[in-house]
Amino acid sequence: MGKYVTITEIANQLNLSHSTVSRALSNHPRISAKTRALVQKLAEELEYRANSTAHHLSKGESQIIAVIVPQLSLHFYSKVVEGIQKVLRDTEYSVLLLNTDESLEEEIRSVDICLKHRVDGVLVAISRGTKNFDHFQKLLKHEVPIVFFDRVANFLPVPKVITNDYQASFDATNHLLNTGCSYIAHITASINLNNSNNRLYGYLDALASHNIKVRESLVHYYEFELSSIDKFLEKTLKKYPQLDGLFVFNDYVANYAINVLCKMGKRVPDDISVIGFSDEPVATYMSPKLSTVQQVAEKMGELSAQKIISILGKNEPMDSEKIVINPKLILRETTKNLIAADADQE
Amino acid sequence: MGKYVTITEIANQLNLSHSTVSRALSNHPRISAKTRALVQKLAEELEYRANSTAHHLSKGESQIIAVIVPQLSLHFYSKVVEGIQKVLRDTEYSVLLLNTDESLEEEIRSVDICLKHRVDGVLVAISRGTKNFDHFQKLLKHEVPIVFFDRVANFLPVPKVITNDYQASFDATNHLLNTGCSYIAHITASINLNNSNNRLYGYLDALASHNIKVRESLVHYYEFELSSIDKFLEKTLKKYPQLDGLFVFNDYVANYAINVLCKMGKRVPDDISVIGFSDEPVATYMSPKLSTVQQVAEKMGELSAQKIISILGKNEPMDSEKIVINPKLILRETTKNLIAADADQE
Repeated sequence: MGKYVTITEIANQLNLSHSTVSRALSNHPRISAKTRALVQKLAEELEYRANSTAHHLSKGESQIIAVIVPQLSLHFYSKVVEGIQKVLRDTEYSVLLLNTDESLEEEIRSVDICLKHRVDGVLVAISRGTKNFDHFQKLLKHEVPIVFFDRVANFLPVPKVITNDYQASFDATNHLLNTGCSYIAHITASINLNNSNNRLYGYLDALASHNIKVRESLVHYYEFELSSIDKFLEKTLKKYPQLDGLFVFNDYVANYAINVLCKMGKRVPDDISVIGFSDEPVATYMSPKLSTVQQVAEKMGELSAQKIISILGKNEPMDSEKIVINPKLILRETTKNLIAADADQE
Repeated sequence: MGKYVTITEIANQLNLSHSTVSRALSNHPRISAKTRALVQKLAEELEYRANSTAHHLSKGESQIIAVIVPQLSLHFYSKVVEGIQKVLRDTEYSVLLLNTDESLEEEIRSVDICLKHRVDGVLVAISRGTKNFDHFQKLLKHEVPIVFFDRVANFLPVPKVITNDYQASFDATNHLLNTGCSYIAHITASINLNNSNNRLYGYLDALASHNIKVRESLVHYYEFELSSIDKFLEKTLKKYPQLDGLFVFNDYVANYAINVLCKMGKRVPDDISVIGFSDEPVATYMSPKLSTVQQVAEKMGELSAQKIISILGKNEPMDSEKIVINPKLILRETTKNLIAADADQE
């Protein structure tokens, strides 16, 4: 552990009491000028830091905000944390980072660590294993502000920052339709149901809005088994050789699907247009570069941090406000340009 | 800020002095049994946490280890942090995360935040902009242990955890040679010179060890302009149609290069074998899946955390030990199998 100078150490060296030193350092009038000078001179020599954590702790402020994420190495969550830190950089707060590894047990432990370090606020995306929310009630009981982001506990009366997946998905599918595609397949995930379902509904509603018949066999529920993508594309191209569009819930899976299409002799976007989701790093390291839905992680981090700073600053009660981010389409090279006649409609 | 119960609050409610309450809570013999019972009962009712940060701070222990990274959203660094947390989970320490955004100024500020929170130790990878190391001397002056990882300040007398890039690169090139390749191109980066140079030397020495002539035009110095990869591959295949191997310093760039090769009608690995570096998430979301060099980030995090825990535990002086990780080759689908006759040699 570091050798940080404590009040006790100064007190011992000068043979004074702890409270005398403490008062001398804060220029208390009941301490003589001589003693004050003595204490302050030694404190300076020893590089005692008056603005220490202990000082703030005694006022109930740790100047620490805890960030609880399910898996830090998912690019999305590390970008959220970067967004949080971008905002906190201009404040007195630092980040205590807790990684739950998608486990409820670790999440409960993380909340206890928040209490142990007396953090001033908590930003959290819940783990996949979280079924009950009693541990968050513990924070609320201590009046520790919470802001949820991405994966939220819907019924807790605290602010939540989320993405409008439905609209983003509708817009992506709509763009494929407006650029001449009519046989559009969709690869979706079966976990994290909320997000995936919203993306599926956006796809279905966009088709309906163009009076395009929904074909169930054009939707693939991906269960994290990549070889299922090969089988799905092979089967689909046999049944619908006119397949001309593909909307994928995730950029990495889109990259894989495009590799498979290339090996099958299909050209992207000449034969088939493809749109991914989330603008992961891979999207720009592809040839052709992937059209996709904007990455909102950094913005989500910024909005969450701004919210908690505002609660901490004004000392206002938390409400259950929903802050919704509408991600935009990013058009790169795996989609065609809008047909001139349709351009006005979009 | 949270409503954490302080000793002052208990003292006020019972009309006792701060030091009486403090002593009563620690069962000091000079406090009467009656007062002790009174204080401890109220502390329990108010959920006062005896094992608080303030308590440890007064002994000079914050139970916080700071982790300073240049860019958290680089997958490598978020995996390092996961490795650190995996080890710290079994200890009393938590992570204060600081992201320097590759700036020396932020790194200096991060060190000041470490001192402000009186962290017990610091794990750090230096930023790209770091030219001098005076700020780390400040930590050493306060006897705060430091362990460097990945990007290290070579001449500071503290432990460093690094990767043997040279050997990994030698092994990768050697595998291409042992599987029948003889015209092997290499794409390397010009920044972060230490790592890239070591990888280049490994490539060159492997060729030399097989008595293969080094052709300067087969090495491309990538300056983060992807279109240069298209040009390099086109030019190289015109000059050396027999090109049969490609070793790339980074998995994302390898993904891009394979896309380009596919569009040029080249089959991987039938025509050209490819090996990447670092086993990024993209490596397994490719078809064919990428052969690459093991990701050592998590292991690097674990070793760094173990080292600092061991220093903190034994209170031993820091030495300038170098802990070297030898990453292994991960053979997937972009390389051929060893030719039986050569198998014994490797």
